[in-house]
Order: sequence, then structure tokens, then C-alpha cells
Amino acid sequence: MSNIEMIHAAAIRLAPVVRRTPLLSSPFLDEIAGRRVFVKAECLQHTGSFKFRGGWAALSGMADDLRAKGVLAYSSGNHAQGLAYAAAKHGIGAVIIMPSDAPAQKIANTRALGAEVVLYDRLKELREEIGAQLSVARGLTLVKPYDEPLVIAGQGTVGLEIAAQAADAGIGAADVLVPCGGGGLTSGVALALNESMPNLRVRPCEPTGFEDTGRSLLSGKREVNPAMGGSICDAIVTPTPGKITFPILQKYCGPGLNVSDDEALRAMKLAFERLKVVLEPGGAVALAAALFRSEQITGDAVITVASGGNVDAQTFQRALEMV
Amino acid sequence: MSNIEMIHAAAIRLAPVVRRTPLLSSPFLDEIAGRRVFVKAECLQHTGSFKFRGGWAALSGMADDLRAKGVLAYSSGNHAQGLAYAAAKHGIGAVIIMPSDAPAQKIANTRALGAEVVLYDRLKELREEIGAQLSVARGLTLVKPYDEPLVIAGQGTVGLEIAAQAADAGIGAADVLVPCGGGGLTSGVALALNESMPNLRVRPCEPTGFEDTGRSLLSGKREVNPAMGGSICDAIVTPTPGKITFPILQKYCGPGLNVSDDEALRAMKLAFERLKVVLEPGGAVALAAALFRSEQITGDAVITVASGGNVDAQTFQRALEMV
Repeated sequence: MSNIEMIHAAAIRLAPVVRRTPLLSSPFLDEIAGRRVFVKAECLQHTGSFKFRGGWAALSGMADDLRAKGVLAYSSGNHAQGLAYAAAKHGIGAVIIMPSDAPAQKIANTRALGAEVVLYDRLKELREEIGAQLSVARGLTLVKPYDEPLVIAGQGTVGLEIAAQAADAGIGAADVLVPCGGGGLTSGVALALNESMPNLRVRPCEPTGFEDTGRSLLSGKREVNPAMGGSICDAIVTPTPGKITFPILQKYCGPGLNVSDDEALRAMKLAFERLKVVLEPGGAVALAAALFRSEQITGDAVITVASGGNVDAQTFQRALEMV
Repeated sequence: MSNIEMIHAAAIRLAPVVRRTPLLSSPFLDEIAGRRVFVKAECLQHTGSFKFRGGWAALSGMADDLRAKGVLAYSSGNHAQGLAYAAAKHGIGAVIIMPSDAPAQKIANTRALGAEVVLYDRLKELREEIGAQLSVARGLTLVKPYDEPLVIAGQGTVGLEIAAQAADAGIGAADVLVPCGGGGLTSGVALALNESMPNLRVRPCEPTGFEDTGRSLLSGKREVNPAMGGSICDAIVTPTPGKITFPILQKYCGPGLNVSDDEALRAMKLAFERLKVVLEPGGAVALAAALFRSEQITGDAVITVASGGNVDAQTFQRALEMV
């Protein structure tokens, strides 16, 4: 199957379970941005982020006998929860390998969604070794967070929905801003839109200082972030664009955009005030770019993906205190 | 036209502009309630509450020559914003009469949505006199917040959507919990469900101490709240059920439920954590009842309406601090 056929096939498998998340807007946001702003609220997806789509697409696309043995992932965040819930709804086991110093709430949430959580010591152990042992011993299949065609196809279903909703909203051409980590969501949406509505151009959005994808698109090779920590947008900080995702991003995406942590927090506050949705910092970078990088965007409308809303109360309170 | 015909007619007029808000759920909420919990997220409606529906239904249902002269409302809250936005989208004027001590942000929001705000001194002036003068001088039509058939019909479209979404979710019978002030939303939803899915039974939800509707349903006559202030759920505190709405509530609703302010705040926090939506206290009372009044509810599923999300940052922070 071609890429776009894989996305359409994923959409069919997802149809009975996925939430078709709304495309939200507010005249107050339009005023700030100087153009119409639309927000694809994937924070309202099951488990609070788009990751459920990729997880479900991966599981539903596997051979039955492999799937029955269960799956494995390394993640302390949205991929863990999305995959855990998708596995529970498939009636199969999921093992999630997390660092023992991950936030207690994330560990508890992942367990509550039905997954078996295996903790490891980041300083003394390699998660890949633990994963390989478990995989061999129990026949578990590793589900990567972004460099996996079935996962990219699942995330691409966001793009199919955007194309239909943009048409309904009378948007003919626009930049589509997408929070970008390893590039699974961005590449999937780009593939879907290139096929179904090519006048919608995808642009990856990242936190300033961690714009590996933006720099990679400029240089033509996979650039590496100088550090992995230090941004409040931790959910979308990855070392470098994926091997599979990067060629797709190169082929279909416009230039990257980046925003500061404070701008992400301000976008979270505006989403609270004007859209009544909860965004996590990494999930707010595309909205922040639409609001605060107007001069780098063209057209009378802009579409942004709000990719997730898994944020703790303390960080959300920081956002509410922004002026 | 019969009541139900008016609701269907309103749905047709609303179709091009209204948001079909999602029916959200989370396994974490199901666990607390001991049954499946569904949340109709009207906080995601235009202007952050269901009131846009009634406003649009009233304007689009008026005679053209009357509408062209503009409309008038008394409100410092959700009705003001919903009507103002509906008027702006109709290209007509809206005059909103507000007390001069209303929160500055609410006055600013209503103006920003295109309305003319007329302030009055609550201690020295009667809003009805100011309204009557303006109405005569300028030919403005008063749009009441709930005791108005067109408004009830507009709010009833929430019920039509719930019926369709409940069927999609495989819910055959359930209590439908609705935050209740004057009863416009509750009566509209009750009318719609009685016709389209009578196994869904509407029950009004109110803040404890301000359960005028619950008491009225028990006594069979319109009971009056002892006070108008003192609940954090101010958006749904009205003196007594409406003249038009109460007979509808009597005919179609089950017993009322009520929750404390703290329970409403806890429901807001759970909606933040598990659904990623922002609820105002009054908009959270039905979810709170589903979570914390389980013993008063029957069936393996419950549907709640989250009627609005217009809450200031300070109040929301109080919710986030709940344990």
C-alpha cells in the first residue's frame, strides 16, 4: 500500500473508536493573530492526545497472532497512555518501560489504563536491553512512538479530518501548524493533506532552542538538539527527526516555526479563556506560533493542531498566571 | 408548531453555525462513578456555553423587520455573550444591560463580541425601566434568557444531539443530568429527549441551598430560593423556575439532584485532568452529581451536560487546588 492508502486504511480501522475532535475557533484569537485561527483539538482525543490514534493503528494493523502476544513501548508520556488504552480496548497486554524517576501520576495513569509498567534505573540500566529481554522472553512486539509506518498512518488520520473540516469552514488555502517532536504526527498530517487538500501546507512547530526539525529542513540533513532537557515543552523534545519521518517532512512541509516557553504558556492561557480546552505546553506550540509569529505566516486563515492536554495542575497554574 | 417541531426547526436554523459538541468520556470518571459517564461538552460551544444556541434560535426565528431593529437583553453572563455573538453574526445590533459593578472582563468580552453595553446602578436604577425606555425609543426586542419559547427550542437542540450521540455510544437508557437555572436548557433537552429517546430521563442539577427547581418538582409549585448570592455556581442561580419552563419540567423530568460548591470544584478539576475541558462551577454541577451522587442514580450509564466554561483564572485555580 502507498502511504496515503495506509492512512485511509487506518482511518477505517479507527472509525469505530476514535473521537473526531472538533475544529475550534474564537473571534478573540482571530483578533490577536490578525487572521482566522482554527484549532484542531486533539487534546480531546482518548487519553488526552493524538497518540491514541497511532497506538490503535499499530495494534489493529498487526498480524493477529503477534498482537495476541502483547506489545511493548518505551515512554513515560502520551505514547504510553495512548498505547496502553488501545491495548486494553483490544483485550491484549501492553508492557510500558518507564524510568523509575518518572512522575508518580504518569506511572499510576498508565497502570490504571491497564498496562504493566516496568521501571528501570536510568543511571544504571539501558531500557533497550530490558525491552529486548522482555520481547524475546514473552514475544512482545515493540511499538515505536514515531518511526513506524503504521503509527504514522494513524496520526495521519488527523490530517484527513482537518481536510474535511477545513472544507466545511470554507478554508481554501492555509498553513497548518503542527507541534513536532520525532515527526510522526507532522509527517502523517503532511501526507494526508498533500493528497486530499494540497493547498493546506504543513509546518512543524517546536520550542526555541529545540528546533531540530526546523534546522534539519534548512540544512537538508537530520540535525541534533544540543540537549534533551530544559524546555517546558518536554513532550515534543526528541533528539533528532526520525529516519522514516524526516524524508516525508522534507518532501511535504514548509519552513518550521518556533516559540518560547513563555509563548507556549500564554497560548495555554488563551486556550483556557477562549476555547475552554486544556493544553499541555508541547501541545500549545502550534497555537502559540499562530498567535505570536503572525509575520511568518501568510493567508487569511491558519490551522493549528493542539496535540495534547496532559499537563499537571502546577504547570497549568503557571500558564494561568501569565499576563 | 408543537414544541418538538420548534426544536427541529431551530436545529435546521442552527445547523450552519452551531458546533456539534462532542460527548466525552474517560475510564477514570467511570471508575469514580461506578458506571459509564458521558459528558456533553457544551463549554466548547461558541462563546463558551450553550447560550449561543438559544440566542441564535431567537434571532433567526424573529420576523425580519423586527430583528433588523436590534435586540435587548439583561445579563452579565453567558446569555449576554451568546446573544451578542449571535447578533453580530446576524449583522444586527444587540444592547446588553449590565450592572455597573459587573466584572470588567465580562463587560469587555460582551463589547468585544460586538454588543452595545449599557450600565446601570443596581442600587438606584431598575434595569427593566432602562430596558423599556430603550425598547420603545429604538424598537429593540427583548430576548429573555429562558422563559421564551424560541430560546427553549434552541437549547433543546442539545437534546437532539444527545439522542443521536447516545445511540452511537450504545446507550439505551440513562439519566441525563442537566445544570438547571431558570430551566431553559433543562426543559428544552427534556422536550427533545421525550420525543426522540424517551428512555433518556432528564434530571435537573443545582447547587445545594439553591435547589429551587428540585424543591418545586417535589412540592408541585414554583418554590423560591432563599437568596440569590452565596454560591460559586452563580451562573445557574435564579430566583425560581420559569413560568413557561416549569410545567415542562414537571411533565418530563425526574427528581432533582444537588451538589455542594466543593463538589462542583472537584468535578472541574476532574474535567481538567481527565477530559481536558474547562468548566465553570455552574457548568460542572451535573458532572459532580454523576460522580458524587451515584447512589441517587440508576442504570449502567449516565449522561451529563457540561453547560459552560466561562470561569476566571482565580476560580479555576481554586478548583485545581482541590484534593
